[in-house]
Amino acid sequence: MFVIGERLNGMFKNVRKAIEESDKTVIQELARSQVEAGAYSLDLNVGPAKVDPVKAMLWLIDTVREVTDVPLTIDSPKWDVQKEVIPQSGDQPIINSSKADPEELDKYVGLAVENNASLVALTLDQQGVPADVERRVELGAQIGAMAMEGGLPMDRLFIDPIILPVNVAPKEPENVLGALQQLKLLSDPPPHLILGLSNVSQNCAQRPLINRTYLVMAMTAGLDAAIADPLDTDLMNAAITTELLQEKAIYCDSFLDAHRMRG
Amino acid sequence: MFVIGERLNGMFKNVRKAIEESDKTVIQELARSQVEAGAYSLDLNVGPAKVDPVKAMLWLIDTVREVTDVPLTIDSPKWDVQKEVIPQSGDQPIINSSKADPEELDKYVGLAVENNASLVALTLDQQGVPADVERRVELGAQIGAMAMEGGLPMDRLFIDPIILPVNVAPKEPENVLGALQQLKLLSDPPPHLILGLSNVSQNCAQRPLINRTYLVMAMTAGLDAAIADPLDTDLMNAAITTELLQEKAIYCDSFLDAHRMRG
Repeated sequence: MFVIGERLNGMFKNVRKAIEESDKTVIQELARSQVEAGAYSLDLNVGPAKVDPVKAMLWLIDTVREVTDVPLTIDSPKWDVQKEVIPQSGDQPIINSSKADPEELDKYVGLAVENNASLVALTLDQQGVPADVERRVELGAQIGAMAMEGGLPMDRLFIDPIILPVNVAPKEPENVLGALQQLKLLSDPPPHLILGLSNVSQNCAQRPLINRTYLVMAMTAGLDAAIADPLDTDLMNAAITTELLQEKAIYCDSFLDAHRMRG
Repeated sequence: MFVIGERLNGMFKNVRKAIEESDKTVIQELARSQVEAGAYSLDLNVGPAKVDPVKAMLWLIDTVREVTDVPLTIDSPKWDVQKEVIPQSGDQPIINSSKADPEELDKYVGLAVENNASLVALTLDQQGVPADVERRVELGAQIGAMAMEGGLPMDRLFIDPIILPVNVAPKEPENVLGALQQLKLLSDPPPHLILGLSNVSQNCAQRPLINRTYLVMAMTAGLDAAIADPLDTDLMNAAITTELLQEKAIYCDSFLDAHRMRG
């Protein structure tokens, strides 16, 4: 499971404050702890912080780079930010994210190819988030085709079929599972399939329980990456155990520790 | 999720002792607590207790009947026990279990039909447990066809594709998921699909974690029943949450309690 740590996001108050005050301590501690807990990449999102978005992102990158060299995921909906920041994001950055509209996607694929970056692309266009399986698969196929045409290898494409909160969109968890099952058949090798996992439990009670249960369901349907909280030990244990049961690891009594030591 | 409580089994030392000494207290406490925790049926298995198997099973039935009226699952591999006990097991008992060999299965289907009972049938014949998806599906189809011919409605048939411990049979968890996905397409309405869940973690470390993770995976693939431990609260929470995410329940902040109150 390719876990991208979600905690360096300005939506969290302490992170927002740290960004606004250029306080490295909070940022570096969250960077370190997420990587130690198993994150293969760290998502960086300025969120609602009142700052220049390019400058703040570059400061975040420099700050995180002082403590870890994992690939960074640059999380911004703004093309101007991505275009400026991605060339300065270090080795193998991940662009998060493009929508599926052809004109936008074409630019983002080009940016990824030029910078040896990966790209997260959402099955979402000007009509909004699809409310069924079919439209997600259609947009996913369009994303896959444009990535291939643009020269982006499938192992650097992450398609995100978008999960909505179960309390407001109760059919979408099943629809996303259906989309995952079909999207993993899109090509050989397939693209990565990713979700912003925590969104499934937005404003719900029992968030950790809902998150880890849906992660196991989505992995069973083909998910192989997630933007999620690696500091949630129960969540990480669920992911490791799912992979064990998918025969992606060999059983030993210490399979949890063995996975963690593998890093 | 149709949970059949697994705890009244002579493999547990306290249960074995209670059966051998005709001590009702332990049995009735386990019956009560499992039903309170959400079991829809209770599995009764004499196990290795040194007793007359028919007499012991009838004693178990009478003892449990004093505290609950949920349907009982008579768990014995012996035809003589089933033939004798099922007519005395109260309303809608469940026969656990028949193998898929035609001659044996024919007798068991007949016993179920005569007694308004349900039947658990294993995808297992004289050649042993299948080590792939295809043979499980083939035997499952054979079971389904014989049940239909014999007049047993699909909603009283539980097909068990047999899960083996992940530490000795690492490919079987995935094979069983593949079989579940196909078996749920067997007929419309489909038969119930069941597993003896705890077997997946036999002699493993982290048993509860492995059990609940595999339960969510199997439910995602189509499982709708399990012989499992309802006293494992984390397991039951995982099952309830999976059903929420499958839109089998409507979200409310107290969805765990709401499910439990529904009973």
